[in-house]
Amino acid sequence: MNEKKEISRFVVKRFPRYYRFLTKLKQNREMRISSGELAKRMGLTASQIRQDFNTFGGFGQQGYGYNTAELCDSIAKIMGLDHPHSIILIGAGNLGRAVAGHMNFKDYGFVLSGVFDKNESFTGQIIKDMPIRNLSGLENFCKDNAPQAAILCIPDTEAEKIVPQLISYGIRAFWNFSHYDIALNHQNVCVQNVHLSDSLMRLCFDMKQSQKQ
Amino acid sequence: MNEKKEISRFVVKRFPRYYRFLTKLKQNREMRISSGELAKRMGLTASQIRQDFNTFGGFGQQGYGYNTAELCDSIAKIMGLDHPHSIILIGAGNLGRAVAGHMNFKDYGFVLSGVFDKNESFTGQIIKDMPIRNLSGLENFCKDNAPQAAILCIPDTEAEKIVPQLISYGIRAFWNFSHYDIALNHQNVCVQNVHLSDSLMRLCFDMKQSQKQ
Repeated sequence: MNEKKEISRFVVKRFPRYYRFLTKLKQNREMRISSGELAKRMGLTASQIRQDFNTFGGFGQQGYGYNTAELCDSIAKIMGLDHPHSIILIGAGNLGRAVAGHMNFKDYGFVLSGVFDKNESFTGQIIKDMPIRNLSGLENFCKDNAPQAAILCIPDTEAEKIVPQLISYGIRAFWNFSHYDIALNHQNVCVQNVHLSDSLMRLCFDMKQSQKQ
Repeated sequence: MNEKKEISRFVVKRFPRYYRFLTKLKQNREMRISSGELAKRMGLTASQIRQDFNTFGGFGQQGYGYNTAELCDSIAKIMGLDHPHSIILIGAGNLGRAVAGHMNFKDYGFVLSGVFDKNESFTGQIIKDMPIRNLSGLENFCKDNAPQAAILCIPDTEAEKIVPQLISYGIRAFWNFSHYDIALNHQNVCVQNVHLSDSLMRLCFDMKQSQKQ
């Protein structure tokens, strides 16, 4: 495995958590933190933290710890959070509405630019200061606004139909709450799946295992 | 690493996906499938599939493929899905309501037995044929009904307060949508986190990386 791939893997794995912790420290006005203290609070080792951050040239000064605001901003930059992508939501049912309402997209590198549903009775309802649009207007919306990513809060069968359309409209990234396996069927797109049922099954299995002990 | 731990790891990692695929085959009345065909549809190799299933003694018959219904039931049994656990929902805001409304708990090893929120104006509203209860009644509910797990759809600060209470009421498993780090603060509990923001940050990073190429 080459070095770049190795960096990608750990960035993707650990950086979101670092970012969350550091954002909290920044909000609490804790201006500096040592790798030892950060390690303690995150359940890691100080050497792991130093090693992770050193991959990018290191952010700390020996004996002074890390400047939390600077470190937070650096991590945001490495993850690309400082250049927000335009994202649209497909599916404004319970889950879609909750995701749209719950997430502060701009904190995580995105701007929600449109909400779509095939259900005509939803058209015009407001989610996050934005009207729900009918799916029939999706193509024109994409031509005019060139969104880069889509959130899929729709059933598998609908996802299977709409993903090729979205790709043909220029969308190259999917935050996928459906069980349709996008990566298996389409190349050269970015996909992050949120499989809630898998997570719940894992909890069930963990409970079974813990009862055995 | 001992064998048991190794089995746990791959079961937790791959079995939910196997289960989803096989459930779909079962629903579509595809009674048999070869490891080769299953591999193709899942983007795996036939030998990986055979190896995974052989860990549990194997389910297929050489030349006949797998009986999908049998295999599906066996996986459900291995994961403990056939012995549902009682789970309560803490937090009936947008996200909690969507999770409760969206999930077929019984398919994934759980029965939703109670919904709680601190907001008194929610009390009595119905989610999934169940009244939202005020948090003040939580202790008595747990004494009477002995739920085994809790879904946390509340902010970090509230999760931090309520988790020790829930543990003292006998709850030993958490499906955690908050960013409060339960495993770091409490031992001997099962935790599955759903960190939506981490997933969104990963998508942002993937997009940044793909633009570089």
